[in-house]
Amino acid sequence: MDVTIATGEPLALDEGLFGRLRRDCAKDWDGYVNHPFLAALADGSLPIEAFREFLVQDYLYLIHYARAYALAAFKSDTLESLRIYSRAMAAIVDGEMPVHIAYCADWGLTEKDLVATPERLETIAYTRFLIDRGMAGDLLDLQAALAPCVAGYAEIGDIIRRSAKTVLQGNPYALWIENYGGDEYRGVANAAIRQLNRSAAAGGGEARYDSLLKTFRGAVQLETAFWGMGWAKR
Amino acid sequence: MDVTIATGEPLALDEGLFGRLRRDCAKDWDGYVNHPFLAALADGSLPIEAFREFLVQDYLYLIHYARAYALAAFKSDTLESLRIYSRAMAAIVDGEMPVHIAYCADWGLTEKDLVATPERLETIAYTRFLIDRGMAGDLLDLQAALAPCVAGYAEIGDIIRRSAKTVLQGNPYALWIENYGGDEYRGVANAAIRQLNRSAAAGGGEARYDSLLKTFRGAVQLETAFWGMGWAKR
Amino acid sequence: MDVTIATGEPLALDEGLFGRLRRDCAKDWDGYVNHPFLAALADGSLPIEAFREFLVQDYLYLIHYARAYALAAFKSDTLESLRIYSRAMAAIVDGEMPVHIAYCADWGLTEKDLVATPERLETIAYTRFLIDRGMAGDLLDLQAALAPCVAGYAEIGDIIRRSAKTVLQGNPYALWIENYGGDEYRGVANAAIRQLNRSAAAGGGEARYDSLLKTFRGAVQLETAFWGMGWAKR
Amino acid sequence: MDVTIATGEPLALDEGLFGRLRRDCAKDWDGYVNHPFLAALADGSLPIEAFREFLVQDYLYLIHYARAYALAAFKSDTLESLRIYSRAMAAIVDGEMPVHIAYCADWGLTEKDLVATPERLETIAYTRFLIDRGMAGDLLDLQAALAPCVAGYAEIGDIIRRSAKTVLQGNPYALWIENYGGDEYRGVANAAIRQLNRSAAAGGGEARYDSLLKTFRGAVQLETAFWGMGWAKR
Repeated sequence: MDVTIATGEPLALDEGLFGRLRRDCAKDWDGYVNHPFLAALADGSLPIEAFREFLVQDYLYLIHYARAYALAAFKSDTLESLRIYSRAMAAIVDGEMPVHIAYCADWGLTEKDLVATPERLETIAYTRFLIDRGMAGDLLDLQAALAPCVAGYAEIGDIIRRSAKTVLQGNPYALWIENYGGDEYRGVANAAIRQLNRSAAAGGGEARYDSLLKTFRGAVQLETAFWGMGWAKR
Repeated sequence: MDVTIATGEPLALDEGLFGRLRRDCAKDWDGYVNHPFLAALADGSLPIEAFREFLVQDYLYLIHYARAYALAAFKSDTLESLRIYSRAMAAIVDGEMPVHIAYCADWGLTEKDLVATPERLETIAYTRFLIDRGMAGDLLDLQAALAPCVAGYAEIGDIIRRSAKTVLQGNPYALWIENYGGDEYRGVANAAIRQLNRSAAAGGGEARYDSLLKTFRGAVQLETAFWGMGWAKR
Repeated sequence: MDVTIATGEPLALDEGLFGRLRRDCAKDWDGYVNHPFLAALADGSLPIEAFREFLVQDYLYLIHYARAYALAAFKSDTLESLRIYSRAMAAIVDGEMPVHIAYCADWGLTEKDLVATPERLETIAYTRFLIDRGMAGDLLDLQAALAPCVAGYAEIGDIIRRSAKTVLQGNPYALWIENYGGDEYRGVANAAIRQLNRSAAAGGGEARYDSLLKTFRGAVQLETAFWGMGWAKR
Repeated sequence: MDVTIATGEPLALDEGLFGRLRRDCAKDWDGYVNHPFLAALADGSLPIEAFREFLVQDYLYLIHYARAYALAAFKSDTLESLRIYSRAMAAIVDGEMPVHIAYCADWGLTEKDLVATPERLETIAYTRFLIDRGMAGDLLDLQAALAPCVAGYAEIGDIIRRSAKTVLQGNPYALWIENYGGDEYRGVANAAIRQLNRSAAAGGGEARYDSLLKTFRGAVQLETAFWGMGWAKR
């Protein structure tokens, strides 16, 4: 495997409250980051149809994911926090989504196709769950809901890069792997993990732990269901 | 003074986190519950115009106060909490507001007059502050914003009933005093205080204390400004 | 079939904007109100396990359904509208849910069991979709999202009562059928339909029709998926 | 007066629904854009203390103004709309606010001073009114609430630049005038006006006109009260 060893800092997966949340739903977490969809993606054996199904729903997901970051900005009470979430939102709508659209174009999908595709149950459930946690709770609740996505994808990138079974040469999904396994994305994930940990320290995270764990686990399970959508098309 | 001594339990003003919040903004709190508007109301010297100004704005306030309780219901995650806020909301729209409208009628104000009166700056500021705290934060933040109103009015009723300067005989505001100084309202206030204290215990209230105090103090200051509206018309 | 013919007014299914929405998603609507789950429920052939699955998820649904009505109250700008939604919420948490809990008890399910059951994907998707439509949009958008549930259940009750294949004698689901096929529930549904139609007239419903139809159709499809949960357990 | 004549397109003040709203609250609008505070700012006679009072509260205002744009992003249902509001939010927190902070520094105010200053009643009322309209209503309601600020400042810049009484030479407020009277800001204002007009066309703006006018007029009056804060310090 010819993946360049990441030169940046390691993932902060064990730090603080995030670390505790991840450990306390270890079985659910494992089902998410080691989903068979990902093993097949890593060695390139995943059927194109399965990946396309995922890709289209992921586009629809990102619309609401960006809305969830807008909600985090709305829930901010300092200029610093407003800036963090404003930039996160810009990174999604001006960075991640255009790349997504370009990527989809390579698979024969126009933006019009993407928008016209009905959301699957899994997509509706996950996105609206995130938004509702943010609406019903405060910024810390929202951060706990969003953490499995941002941190989990970095861990997945890491797992795939380190796995002996991974084949990048000729793998149609190499770009996706390089993106989430890269230093830049790892930095994004670590920043989100540490922000959650800081919010937890300031916002009574330990006292509210059970409720935060319920939110976190819910999001992990919905991530797993999301992989399942694509996997069902193999 | 011929006020019947309340037979119910005393006000829970010193209990738990609520007690700490009230003590830590003692000067602001004193300005609110001992406002000159209230001394004049207690001895009946308050000009009718000042009371009418208050009464009309208080009607407009109650619309948004009911909305804030609806928001608390929305932010609930148990049937018990949903019920508490559903009943609180019903108590406002089916109990308090019809009484308010009937009371206003005695002062020559129809419901149509009330609705047509523009909200004063003080009314807009206070009501939307409550709603925004509830939207930006979680249920505990909203409870901290609502507590000064519900608990403060009971304390005001208590202060007026106990004051040697209070004159109920022939006092045009006797009904108002009896309402907020009565056992029933005291029960409502104590329930709200204890609910806030329970939420604080479960929701990291101590760790989040500074933020809760800022919200609480903000609401106390806005209550004081609200009395000021009527007082300016004397 | 010994069902008493309803004496009240007929269902307002064809009136106003609601009628137009229902007609314009006729195929989806038909899949919802004529789901095989309901035919089996009507003749009593539905396996108990399928009904229990539905019943438990329906309890979890009602928590969020009540929250959606709380949101409608929050979004109200008149005392009249606040009252309508305050009463609707009270009807759910103090009327419908205790009946639900009592009913579940007959099937061997305690309230503790209900609360401890994980929400299914279909339940999460539908409930959070309702709440998000209400949050992202205005009261009319929320009404359009809620209408398929309240009006559809009345139509279902009506269809079952009128069907020659319905067997009430010895049918374990007779109570459910009588509830949703009864005059009282029909009155609730008609009130909701007419309220939506009034809001649409005042709120530019025709100009916003495409967006309202998308919301309405989404809710209808999620209702159908909800029946599917129970049906899968037969 | 040595102001360069703006070379860009004229302000779109009369176009579409925005034009109708502005005309229909002409008296309130005139009180806002022709406030004595602005005449004194234009000829440089405004006491420094009055401007500082305004400047500090305007900083606190911008925090919530940015939150209102985050809310608009949250309420978006297309990638295009998400982008518009994401960029508007970035323009506030990464563009306008740093300039504001730098500008305040020239007046001897550090960012710490700004954050530590209590919000005035006028600031609380206006900012939370914006946010509540966005929360209670849909994106069009929020746009109607935000329009008086963005469009009014451009008109104010225009009025001051065109006025024969304006003195830029040696005017300590020249930078402020040049900013809001410049081509760039006019472009921002026109984009916002046209977006409101498009949303109104798609969202039943004419049918909802009375409600939108109430929101618009409320914001105009709160803008006027905001000038009053500084004016009171002269």
